[in-house]
Amino acid sequence: MVNAAIIGASGYSGAELLRVLSSHPEVRVKKVTAASSAGQRVDALYPSFAGQCDLSYDELIPAGLDGIDVAFVALPSGEAMKVVPVLKAKIGKIIDLGGDFRLPSPELYEQYYRRPHTAPELLQGAVYGLPEINRHAIAAASLVANPGCYPTASILGLLPALKHGIINPGGIVINALSGVSGAGRSASVDMSFAELNENVRAYKIGTHQHIPEIESVLSGASGSPVTASFVPHLIPVTRGIYATSHAGLAVTVTGEELQTLYGEFYSSHPFIRITQKVPQLLSVTKTNYCDIAVTVEPRTNQLIVISVIDNLVKGAAGQAVQNMNLMFGLPETTGLK
Amino acid sequence: MVNAAIIGASGYSGAELLRVLSSHPEVRVKKVTAASSAGQRVDALYPSFAGQCDLSYDELIPAGLDGIDVAFVALPSGEAMKVVPVLKAKIGKIIDLGGDFRLPSPELYEQYYRRPHTAPELLQGAVYGLPEINRHAIAAASLVANPGCYPTASILGLLPALKHGIINPGGIVINALSGVSGAGRSASVDMSFAELNENVRAYKIGTHQHIPEIESVLSGASGSPVTASFVPHLIPVTRGIYATSHAGLAVTVTGEELQTLYGEFYSSHPFIRITQKVPQLLSVTKTNYCDIAVTVEPRTNQLIVISVIDNLVKGAAGQAVQNMNLMFGLPETTGLK
Amino acid sequence: MVNAAIIGASGYSGAELLRVLSSHPEVRVKKVTAASSAGQRVDALYPSFAGQCDLSYDELIPAGLDGIDVAFVALPSGEAMKVVPVLKAKIGKIIDLGGDFRLPSPELYEQYYRRPHTAPELLQGAVYGLPEINRHAIAAASLVANPGCYPTASILGLLPALKHGIINPGGIVINALSGVSGAGRSASVDMSFAELNENVRAYKIGTHQHIPEIESVLSGASGSPVTASFVPHLIPVTRGIYATSHAGLAVTVTGEELQTLYGEFYSSHPFIRITQKVPQLLSVTKTNYCDIAVTVEPRTNQLIVISVIDNLVKGAAGQAVQNMNLMFGLPETTGLK
Amino acid sequence: MVNAAIIGASGYSGAELLRVLSSHPEVRVKKVTAASSAGQRVDALYPSFAGQCDLSYDELIPAGLDGIDVAFVALPSGEAMKVVPVLKAKIGKIIDLGGDFRLPSPELYEQYYRRPHTAPELLQGAVYGLPEINRHAIAAASLVANPGCYPTASILGLLPALKHGIINPGGIVINALSGVSGAGRSASVDMSFAELNENVRAYKIGTHQHIPEIESVLSGASGSPVTASFVPHLIPVTRGIYATSHAGLAVTVTGEELQTLYGEFYSSHPFIRITQKVPQLLSVTKTNYCDIAVTVEPRTNQLIVISVIDNLVKGAAGQAVQNMNLMFGLPETTGLK
Repeated sequence: MVNAAIIGASGYSGAELLRVLSSHPEVRVKKVTAASSAGQRVDALYPSFAGQCDLSYDELIPAGLDGIDVAFVALPSGEAMKVVPVLKAKIGKIIDLGGDFRLPSPELYEQYYRRPHTAPELLQGAVYGLPEINRHAIAAASLVANPGCYPTASILGLLPALKHGIINPGGIVINALSGVSGAGRSASVDMSFAELNENVRAYKIGTHQHIPEIESVLSGASGSPVTASFVPHLIPVTRGIYATSHAGLAVTVTGEELQTLYGEFYSSHPFIRITQKVPQLLSVTKTNYCDIAVTVEPRTNQLIVISVIDNLVKGAAGQAVQNMNLMFGLPETTGLK
Repeated sequence: MVNAAIIGASGYSGAELLRVLSSHPEVRVKKVTAASSAGQRVDALYPSFAGQCDLSYDELIPAGLDGIDVAFVALPSGEAMKVVPVLKAKIGKIIDLGGDFRLPSPELYEQYYRRPHTAPELLQGAVYGLPEINRHAIAAASLVANPGCYPTASILGLLPALKHGIINPGGIVINALSGVSGAGRSASVDMSFAELNENVRAYKIGTHQHIPEIESVLSGASGSPVTASFVPHLIPVTRGIYATSHAGLAVTVTGEELQTLYGEFYSSHPFIRITQKVPQLLSVTKTNYCDIAVTVEPRTNQLIVISVIDNLVKGAAGQAVQNMNLMFGLPETTGLK
Repeated sequence: MVNAAIIGASGYSGAELLRVLSSHPEVRVKKVTAASSAGQRVDALYPSFAGQCDLSYDELIPAGLDGIDVAFVALPSGEAMKVVPVLKAKIGKIIDLGGDFRLPSPELYEQYYRRPHTAPELLQGAVYGLPEINRHAIAAASLVANPGCYPTASILGLLPALKHGIINPGGIVINALSGVSGAGRSASVDMSFAELNENVRAYKIGTHQHIPEIESVLSGASGSPVTASFVPHLIPVTRGIYATSHAGLAVTVTGEELQTLYGEFYSSHPFIRITQKVPQLLSVTKTNYCDIAVTVEPRTNQLIVISVIDNLVKGAAGQAVQNMNLMFGLPETTGLK
Repeated sequence: MVNAAIIGASGYSGAELLRVLSSHPEVRVKKVTAASSAGQRVDALYPSFAGQCDLSYDELIPAGLDGIDVAFVALPSGEAMKVVPVLKAKIGKIIDLGGDFRLPSPELYEQYYRRPHTAPELLQGAVYGLPEINRHAIAAASLVANPGCYPTASILGLLPALKHGIINPGGIVINALSGVSGAGRSASVDMSFAELNENVRAYKIGTHQHIPEIESVLSGASGSPVTASFVPHLIPVTRGIYATSHAGLAVTVTGEELQTLYGEFYSSHPFIRITQKVPQLLSVTKTNYCDIAVTVEPRTNQLIVISVIDNLVKGAAGQAVQNMNLMFGLPETTGLK
């Protein structure tokens, strides 16, 4: 039995982790912590946990972490790099759900996150926690950087074609739609119902912090220097990432051939489904699946990939548990199907 | 031409007033004011006004109110009673969209609004601005208390039956559903999209400040002491009040007879529509209509009334303009159809 | 291991049953059937099942029902009474999710369902499948009539107060809000997104077929003849029933006393949660819980009860599985938490 | 005063036309027609018209068209080409809101609409009704093909950059999100609330009938052969088109320079707003505006254009009225602001 702590458990990712872990047969959540909600019961913040979870939030870095086998850190980016060095001294395995340990260099971090990286020595050893790329490295890691929600969908959608040289690594266009829970649990007029309902808005065009994550991971995994123009949009749903990617075809190929290629590429990966029909968001809601469909458009010589996840599951908590399973030698799907 | 000012124009009611008044042929909005947004352009807060409104927010009580014929006060309850005494010295006609001048006594105000009333001398002279009851008094008023959104729908739905002795004045039950804009433009986790989408919650059961407004107006207009149990619910739509009222029948009557009675009662009131089919919220969205349907249930000896409005129009800005039309001798529907 | 069939599995209740049963450790779904979708794979209709369910729809009453221990019938009302007599000859335990076997007499059925009952001989032996009332009878039953979604929420909310004589059995008022999935999976303009989004509509006022179900079950369980005025409303959410009930107090009691009484009443029932805060729909979404809160309003001498469920789970598929657990001697919560 | 008929007025575009025209000071709608709803009152189908519109639907091609100055045809594509030849014999000016007269050749029509064109002789004379391109031709036209909703947003967003040689005409990528009303008023499971709420789905990838419309109009207006990959997505809002376009930069330019260029390009066009902030859907809802923002991304050497409209207004009924204004020598904005 794995004893787990969730550091920063009062936000949506933390609550989702608690939900996923509560039905995991091999895990016991021993501690949940939160800076501002310390002392409150979990079911006071999230009434859906009433009768199912008897925990209260501890202070952010509580005493009594002895016996904790794994810590999930679900803090805003910028907070995790303060906390992880402290936790590493006490806990053997750490999975950070934020952005602090995903990029290859502190310079790139500072450029996109607009603050200096305060734990650059940990960057090198952190393993990017996308099991479909890094399964073996994750299994051996002590610090896993759980991928961002947009990168998870985007990378999984483009990787097979890139790695097989089917598409050009430059000039990729990714348009992605995100449910509102991706912005976290926060008080702001911009995130209020009346401002988001019946509305759409793109944001952070050309500046989103997931751009270097997408580019660096795809470049590393495919061996070619990838550049991608990425436009995120907020739409009025609670959960989900719907990514539509365009890339120029480098070879002549049919949709059927590509579908086969994608199927083989992911044949040993239980959470990837290659679909014939265009994927829908609802098909993956509250699951750890990523649904992917490929279309070849001969008229424009483009590959169009749709890749879809639940931002709180495969894009956050579910993937973190998938990583934890690998780190503890459990079957990858334990507690996730 | 009527020169108008909107005091506190940065919230949803203020913005809706600006929208309604911008197509009113007899009004010019000369000033819009706001405490925290002073100095900003209106279209910076509300991009939909770009190209249509060139105003910027003045400080809350600006200099240069000479020549203003009417001030609409769209401040939170508790703020208006500080501001209206100042405005009254400068401007001849004032319409307050908040709750500060709607109740008959400072004691009742203090009980439900949980603060002392600081301008009790103005309470007496204020006219309750429901044109379907008080058309003539409104025309002569210098201070009009624009009704609340829930009371507008509830009172209009019950008044004809009460006034004709069709129903008992005690034991009335009103269940009402409100769109989220009714809670105003504010930063709070409770009002965030992720907390309201796919959700419903009742609130302030037995304590809502609209209870004494409904009871006192219905009692006054019908001549019988009305008591009503009122339960408001927040539902995931932006606009609208959907009120379902139950009252015990005092006489034997058919649905058809009541429908005729309601039709005659409101025959001279252009914004009331008595419908045969059960009303829908969408039928009144962005209009000043109140749609009402009556059902007699012989099995339980109850009258069931559905009454529906747009909370920002007939429940706020539209009704305020309807009142202004009456105060300036304009046709009641000017700028509202 | 229990071998199950779902008869009429192409609608939302049938699909939800499949979802719930797929994680039930003691059940194997061997057959799913559907009239119009026979021959299609389940994941063609519901892509979310891809990779998780390999079944295809059989014809409605398929051959090869040998070895089936329990049949769930998830057909529209009126269809089940044609099918259940056939199934009863082959399968020992049947749970009907529709309305055909819920009412005490064929006359009442004909009055509200507007068609004659064609299997009146089965009405008598059918057990009303609300475990919080009928746990023992359900355990022994061969035909269980799974309750309607509105009745489940309404009855659970009112029963403790009625049974203890706290409220008057006459003059009860129930207003209920339903998510759209309650209307089933069907092609109609009325159920289209553009007609329901940002909209509310009450329907079947005084004529809904759940009225006699609520009244007869409450009358039977409390021993007093209950009459209730019931108004259902469709609101723009996918899942959930939010029931707000008013009843006249027969005794003097405080809210705290009632909360204690409700807590004790349901102390052995694992899916009822008595909450101090007003319940929210989201707290019960995709769960088998019913959340209940009671408020005493001394001013009007009324009890106000809020009771909330997921219409597809506690209001349909989840409750059906809860019943099945009882019928097979399994712990009541198996597969449901 | 212009006397108008709406042929096929029972769908959403027809109803929106009626809504827009009912506040137009120079138009009287004399006839509304509909195939399947003939004989019904307009307010029976659309209760929001109660008290405002006393018309009933005539049969599709009614007698008594004498004196009609303009007919708006709001029929599904494929129906208009049967009806317009008949109408042309009786009515001097016709505006077709469907797709039958938008493409330059019957061959292209057959390829994308998958049926032969039955009135090819009218294709040549039809004027594409985008006032920002064809203002003078529209003023002189007897048959105007009102643009599609996606093409309106896409073309307006890309045209200035194309015409000035700022971007390459090949390799353009357009991702567009559409509100559900764009699919029309129809009974289908796919369009039901439960299937669209909390969901997203792309559709008709590479085959949508608006592709040749976008390409041929942009090619014609810019003088370069444009190819564009277009992916439409259905999202859970009722109204709106949100188009995000990517194009390779052909020259070195800054965002500020482009913003100035766009502002000048559209300086005489009252319904185009070039915005500095990223546009929101809600800013254009129920208006005839198209909001456009341009971003230059030097890292990828791409121009990113966001262009946003209300699909039922600037994308259908509003633009049709704008065209009608031009055809009758009225100020272009009459009845539209």
